[in-house]
Amino acid sequence: MTQIWQKGYSINKQVESYAAAQNSLLDHQLIRHDVWGSLAHATMLKQIGILEENELQSLKHALLEILGQEKNHTFTIDPEDEDVHTSIENYLVKVAGPAGKNIHTARSRNDQVLVDLRLYSKEQLVQISQKLFKLCSTLLDFAASNMDIPMPGYTHMQRGMLSSVGLWAASFAEALLDDERLLLAAYEINDQSPLGSAAGYGVPLPIDRQLVADLLGFARVQNNVIYVQNARGKIEAAIVQSLTQIMLDLSKMAQDLLLFTTTEYGFFQVAQEVCTGSSIMPQKRNLDIMELVRARAQTMLAHQQHILGIVCGLPSGYNMDYQETKRPLMEALELAQASIEICTLVISNVSVNSERLVAACSFELFATDRAYDMVTQEHMPFRDAYRIVGKEVTAQLDHHLPLPGENQEQLLARLKKRSHLGGTGNPGLELDRQRLSNAQERWQQHATTFKTAIQQLVGTSQITILEEE
Amino acid sequence: MTQIWQKGYSINKQVESYAAAQNSLLDHQLIRHDVWGSLAHATMLKQIGILEENELQSLKHALLEILGQEKNHTFTIDPEDEDVHTSIENYLVKVAGPAGKNIHTARSRNDQVLVDLRLYSKEQLVQISQKLFKLCSTLLDFAASNMDIPMPGYTHMQRGMLSSVGLWAASFAEALLDDERLLLAAYEINDQSPLGSAAGYGVPLPIDRQLVADLLGFARVQNNVIYVQNARGKIEAAIVQSLTQIMLDLSKMAQDLLLFTTTEYGFFQVAQEVCTGSSIMPQKRNLDIMELVRARAQTMLAHQQHILGIVCGLPSGYNMDYQETKRPLMEALELAQASIEICTLVISNVSVNSERLVAACSFELFATDRAYDMVTQEHMPFRDAYRIVGKEVTAQLDHHLPLPGENQEQLLARLKKRSHLGGTGNPGLELDRQRLSNAQERWQQHATTFKTAIQQLVGTSQITILEEE
Amino acid sequence: MTQIWQKGYSINKQVESYAAAQNSLLDHQLIRHDVWGSLAHATMLKQIGILEENELQSLKHALLEILGQEKNHTFTIDPEDEDVHTSIENYLVKVAGPAGKNIHTARSRNDQVLVDLRLYSKEQLVQISQKLFKLCSTLLDFAASNMDIPMPGYTHMQRGMLSSVGLWAASFAEALLDDERLLLAAYEINDQSPLGSAAGYGVPLPIDRQLVADLLGFARVQNNVIYVQNARGKIEAAIVQSLTQIMLDLSKMAQDLLLFTTTEYGFFQVAQEVCTGSSIMPQKRNLDIMELVRARAQTMLAHQQHILGIVCGLPSGYNMDYQETKRPLMEALELAQASIEICTLVISNVSVNSERLVAACSFELFATDRAYDMVTQEHMPFRDAYRIVGKEVTAQLDHHLPLPGENQEQLLARLKKRSHLGGTGNPGLELDRQRLSNAQERWQQHATTFKTAIQQLVGTSQITILEEE
Amino acid sequence: MTQIWQKGYSINKQVESYAAAQNSLLDHQLIRHDVWGSLAHATMLKQIGILEENELQSLKHALLEILGQEKNHTFTIDPEDEDVHTSIENYLVKVAGPAGKNIHTARSRNDQVLVDLRLYSKEQLVQISQKLFKLCSTLLDFAASNMDIPMPGYTHMQRGMLSSVGLWAASFAEALLDDERLLLAAYEINDQSPLGSAAGYGVPLPIDRQLVADLLGFARVQNNVIYVQNARGKIEAAIVQSLTQIMLDLSKMAQDLLLFTTTEYGFFQVAQEVCTGSSIMPQKRNLDIMELVRARAQTMLAHQQHILGIVCGLPSGYNMDYQETKRPLMEALELAQASIEICTLVISNVSVNSERLVAACSFELFATDRAYDMVTQEHMPFRDAYRIVGKEVTAQLDHHLPLPGENQEQLLARLKKRSHLGGTGNPGLELDRQRLSNAQERWQQHATTFKTAIQQLVGTSQITILEEE
Repeated sequence: MTQIWQKGYSINKQVESYAAAQNSLLDHQLIRHDVWGSLAHATMLKQIGILEENELQSLKHALLEILGQEKNHTFTIDPEDEDVHTSIENYLVKVAGPAGKNIHTARSRNDQVLVDLRLYSKEQLVQISQKLFKLCSTLLDFAASNMDIPMPGYTHMQRGMLSSVGLWAASFAEALLDDERLLLAAYEINDQSPLGSAAGYGVPLPIDRQLVADLLGFARVQNNVIYVQNARGKIEAAIVQSLTQIMLDLSKMAQDLLLFTTTEYGFFQVAQEVCTGSSIMPQKRNLDIMELVRARAQTMLAHQQHILGIVCGLPSGYNMDYQETKRPLMEALELAQASIEICTLVISNVSVNSERLVAACSFELFATDRAYDMVTQEHMPFRDAYRIVGKEVTAQLDHHLPLPGENQEQLLARLKKRSHLGGTGNPGLELDRQRLSNAQERWQQHATTFKTAIQQLVGTSQITILEEE
Repeated sequence: MTQIWQKGYSINKQVESYAAAQNSLLDHQLIRHDVWGSLAHATMLKQIGILEENELQSLKHALLEILGQEKNHTFTIDPEDEDVHTSIENYLVKVAGPAGKNIHTARSRNDQVLVDLRLYSKEQLVQISQKLFKLCSTLLDFAASNMDIPMPGYTHMQRGMLSSVGLWAASFAEALLDDERLLLAAYEINDQSPLGSAAGYGVPLPIDRQLVADLLGFARVQNNVIYVQNARGKIEAAIVQSLTQIMLDLSKMAQDLLLFTTTEYGFFQVAQEVCTGSSIMPQKRNLDIMELVRARAQTMLAHQQHILGIVCGLPSGYNMDYQETKRPLMEALELAQASIEICTLVISNVSVNSERLVAACSFELFATDRAYDMVTQEHMPFRDAYRIVGKEVTAQLDHHLPLPGENQEQLLARLKKRSHLGGTGNPGLELDRQRLSNAQERWQQHATTFKTAIQQLVGTSQITILEEE
Repeated sequence: MTQIWQKGYSINKQVESYAAAQNSLLDHQLIRHDVWGSLAHATMLKQIGILEENELQSLKHALLEILGQEKNHTFTIDPEDEDVHTSIENYLVKVAGPAGKNIHTARSRNDQVLVDLRLYSKEQLVQISQKLFKLCSTLLDFAASNMDIPMPGYTHMQRGMLSSVGLWAASFAEALLDDERLLLAAYEINDQSPLGSAAGYGVPLPIDRQLVADLLGFARVQNNVIYVQNARGKIEAAIVQSLTQIMLDLSKMAQDLLLFTTTEYGFFQVAQEVCTGSSIMPQKRNLDIMELVRARAQTMLAHQQHILGIVCGLPSGYNMDYQETKRPLMEALELAQASIEICTLVISNVSVNSERLVAACSFELFATDRAYDMVTQEHMPFRDAYRIVGKEVTAQLDHHLPLPGENQEQLLARLKKRSHLGGTGNPGLELDRQRLSNAQERWQQHATTFKTAIQQLVGTSQITILEEE
Repeated sequence: MTQIWQKGYSINKQVESYAAAQNSLLDHQLIRHDVWGSLAHATMLKQIGILEENELQSLKHALLEILGQEKNHTFTIDPEDEDVHTSIENYLVKVAGPAGKNIHTARSRNDQVLVDLRLYSKEQLVQISQKLFKLCSTLLDFAASNMDIPMPGYTHMQRGMLSSVGLWAASFAEALLDDERLLLAAYEINDQSPLGSAAGYGVPLPIDRQLVADLLGFARVQNNVIYVQNARGKIEAAIVQSLTQIMLDLSKMAQDLLLFTTTEYGFFQVAQEVCTGSSIMPQKRNLDIMELVRARAQTMLAHQQHILGIVCGLPSGYNMDYQETKRPLMEALELAQASIEICTLVISNVSVNSERLVAACSFELFATDRAYDMVTQEHMPFRDAYRIVGKEVTAQLDHHLPLPGENQEQLLARLKKRSHLGGTGNPGLELDRQRLSNAQERWQQHATTFKTAIQQLVGTSQITILEEE
């Protein structure tokens, strides 16, 4: 086919290739969203008299055909078409005649790509939330099962005070619950309809932007048409910023798992089925995927930097630079999902070596406890007790006279004694489960609003949105 | 003085210097927050029987003294003290005797620095919100005054369609209103009390974490004590991510202002009092500060990357690396405030050259309007109309036959014709003002909760929180 | 096929998919380099008695077959093979029997991927250098043709002093010549043979690392085997850092071109064949590709950050994280080439509007000249002259009394008067051409050394290295 | 005092404060470089007849006074002066009368700050090279002493193959030797004289740029005056990119040291004098400074991103944005020095626990050796041997039947058997020492050229350049 802006001369091939980049590849994921946007826009054009009823029907028919082809992976975007918008317009012109030539009235690819990306992001974010909740729940189950297994608590990578395996696992669940609040803010910022902003300055036609927003299930119209365009990249950045927070937590979990599964620590073992081997060393079982989670947290940071770097300092109005934010956004959303899932898999495959853990709870972990005993029993000021204990322990460590550690029963008593909120004796898992449940409800509402609108727009039988894999 | 962990040997001076960095300098801004945290902690220690009533009173007395000294800038943090926590503990030991040696019971510098930074951030974020609202309001006023002044709307930095100066200004107000939602999410994540997590694993003492949280005006206790420590850097990053969004908008505004004040555009002039000169070229009036806003948006990105880079992939538990996130956080918060204020100043000093703006609205801006006329009046499909108009305009441009533009009255009619939501004829400033007002109310509530708690904690007369400069 | 480290159990599919990422896709570009490395390694194994002569021959035969298939794009890497190394080993086992099972002796995929990437990078860097020289030469030609066309010199985006179009163009040529030095340093760091480091700790076999290095045309063996592995990512970063410098220059050129082709500046026009259009506005001719160069400079920064972020703080020895540096490296090398070429195309298609340029050289550009006249003719101290001229010009600007500018002849005289090194009257293009020629010679030598070695290794007829497209 | 560009109106205080930032603070480190630049510039102005001999003498006298005051830390830069250039010009006007008002002829602060930063960077880079060489030498000494101490070689943080403590240490020395080549490229790019470019477009005066370059000891004049300005930030970035490479290596060393000094590994112990303690846990000895090196490698990445982010996409000509690159450059140079020194200190304070190391060399490290024995002794193809050994070792690990490790003598024999280049039996320390010596010589030459020129310029007695602390 051909570019829709062609006016009778040929564009340089090298320019075409540099400009296209991976656009047609990425756009294969935006077919249904572009169709949804077109359905809503056409319905509105009919409403304000630009399209006739029969034109609308032939457009609808053709658009639903495309949805069917997408499901069968038979709708293709020719690189020469530049993008999904052009492919679909070309298809409509071919199939629906003059109506196809009219659908772009009161619209620009600038607001079209915006609506595609917003709808795509909504779908993705709902899926991410679901996977996040599953990981959260897996962690809380793991925490409940291992709450009483002692573990050294480290600071500066040195043994500090007593902790437990369960407390460790629950800490990540709580981190993810905080992430949900940031994810939600990103979802809400994204949940605004951009259609009608056209090239960024609106149109001299009496379009009904609210109707389009309602048809697509958006929470609101994004008002100022210049801001709509200026939000390109900005909202993408907000989404990726929230994903960055998730990856931050996963990277920490990955680093811990990598340490705890070394021969030296030996606290955890992970099932062989989730490990990989070496081409030269026959004995190796590597927890590759946790190294990859650690590395891909950096990939997420690079995506974030990429988007922000591009949009920072751009003048107002659409700039081609924005096209380059599409790929990091889409890759970021996929990366977050895959990484959350892989962590769920790994946590489900961890077996805990409680013998090694008990042995690792060596005497120096209790130096602070001893100082506190002197405070509460002998009424010695803490800083004095600290110095006395400090000298003793230091001497023991220097003379390699480690006292024996404690047995599991003694350790359990100590764990229980940390009875304040959030301590090993009172970890608050039920609070976490309540927060999780509230969060799930919030997202379920968003998912339902979105799904219901799209189902009404396309007719129930066509819907592929938010399906379980 | 000396480090509180000293046990009888001297630390290498080079190590001391490398470790200290700018800590004592930065910590001068955390004095009052450290005092507030200590007041709440001591009150709780009294409640659970670790401190006697008279000990609590002597600690309170000494802590209020420090607050007084902070106000007069006479409380100093000796670099040899390492940090504000040590300086204050040393002061308390000196002034309040054994009680001073006891205040660190059930506490670590790890949770102490966390509470300081959370309180500091709350203060800063409230101030940022207030300055943001002022800029927003300034932009809306400017928009209202200039809504009917035509302006070319650019895409790809080329003249695209008709816009207006007011619509341009309002677009930034709406961007900032979206930022408020992200800022609020960051505020809420930050509004959790970390005290009681101690070194990251709690304490074997029956402390009351909820009481401390209430005394300090936090919305909730941050539960899991390991997560409390792991949130170091993470919450800082969430805050800076939201500030990044603000700087993104300001950088765009700055870039626009720099373009619009060039001789070539000539749309705006900025009062000489906010410009600077050259050491060699006598004629220069440079809008330096907008170049700095543009550059400092990159500074904010670097702060964000800095914090995230440090915490990404760290193992659980306190790591010294976290110390390095303090400076980018604090600089980021100050930078955001100063940048918002400077933009408010500049917008207040812009004068609009409507003559140049009218002249810049050249005929090609209306090519799309003409195509729409053919659609609505001649029932020609848009894509056909587009091609016909395209050939005409291209020919005119090629033969340097620019048609005359239109006069201000004609342009005004065109502006009004964009009558849909968010267009030049219906910009929705009243919606923006309503959103602004709602946001102000939200933050006022947060500010009041915070301020009230701190006032009760320290006694009204001492309060220096959230005062206008 | 199957992973080469399989020992009788099945790996989880989700793990396989998360680990694989785009490896098999990327690795299609490394087929020939992997073959070259294998040829050199096998030759060495024969030399030290691990392989028999007939085994070597059958391996060589099979490896050359693969080269042939690569040329026809018929050699494929099955995603289940994990990577190019496995695909090739599997092929060799199938075709060359026991010898195929023996080629991995004294080798690990860790040093294999290193040698592939080093050879690939050498090829790419040589090609980049050639394209850089072409752009440089295009710029110098453009500069020579336009040296006498006056142009305002801007500071702070405001008109400052007189400059010329030629001087502007030559400034980029010189920037690129400096880049060549940084590119060369990266090339040299990369020009070390990693083979023989195996998994990172060498092998208990008397391998001849120097022979392998010589066969592959490397300048030297990278000695310490631990450092060899630790250099993964590091050398990639060094390469991308040098590419970042190139993109920095191109982004500046792009920004200038975008400004100079606005209606407001109107200094340059770019041929329609290298511009694109709008889907809604019939009149638009956008210099998209320069916006993309500007945006993709940020992409390069993201690649740099990505690689550095991944490797920073990793412990010694191979970590799976390194795999993730492959993609940003390869994309960075391709991006640099495409961007340099597109800039060459654009510069070749710029037409200069000297009328607009002369008109833009308005009187305030000469304020400094006037002050200097007072210094040299009236012996007035510069700072006094500056103040007098400053007041005059400011008054003229304020009262909108712009003096007429000067005609082209007068401007030319002024241009010539800047007769010092590097000024408009003495731009030193011949110096630039000399530097360019020296640089070309340097790279020609590197290219020849490399090409000669590979030709001898594979036999002349097979060579596909460094061919002109 | 006052800004030198003042022409009779007052600048807004808020603008002044936002613009100034930390300029006057940073500029205290540039006093002597600004004086050197001024001495060279004044000498040239006399040469071309702008200054009289007596004017030159009075300027020289005043400038040497400033050098003296700098040495005693009595020369101050008033924040109202904006920068060091203004302070010095104001001083000269006060002390040297009309000559002071004339020194800025043919100069702009734009090229003045460039020359200051180039000279400052040259000084700093020479010092960094010296410290780098000292660390390198310390590492090689440590390596020589510990070459025969066995150590597990890790891949994926799992035990892989046999290595040695000495080989580990030497790997960092080689990394730093490669860094030297990148540092040198940065030095050479920086070693160009910018003076005479003035505001970026030269001057209509017959200045002698080569003379100024020679007087200041620069290797060459940076020719094209526009490029001179456009190189602002670019050269800074090149310098910081090379420092990033150094920090990358140090971060890896730090991470290794942190792991190897955990209780779990126990390979190394670091003297208590370079460790710090905890405020709550009496027993703690933390290797804080290595955590800080790890974190500050990220600080260096942030500096790099900061500079590159600012300059990327800026239009040609001086932009105020450049000012913001000064601080990250200067902090980066200081950070690199301090970090190199701290690593030298730590390496000098490591004691090696060979007992723990021998014990850690458990049987699975030799699985590959066994496979190789089957290849060389039984002529079994490697991949077959690999599978057989793989099954055996896996079974042993699964049934927790670890074979005993080997004794130190046996391990030593294995170490020696890795006799190829760069292996434990042939680590090539003498090659490393030779490379180090060559590098030292290269930098000595640069240092001498620089120092000699400056000594001649200011007179021997005044010289403070490049002195040992």
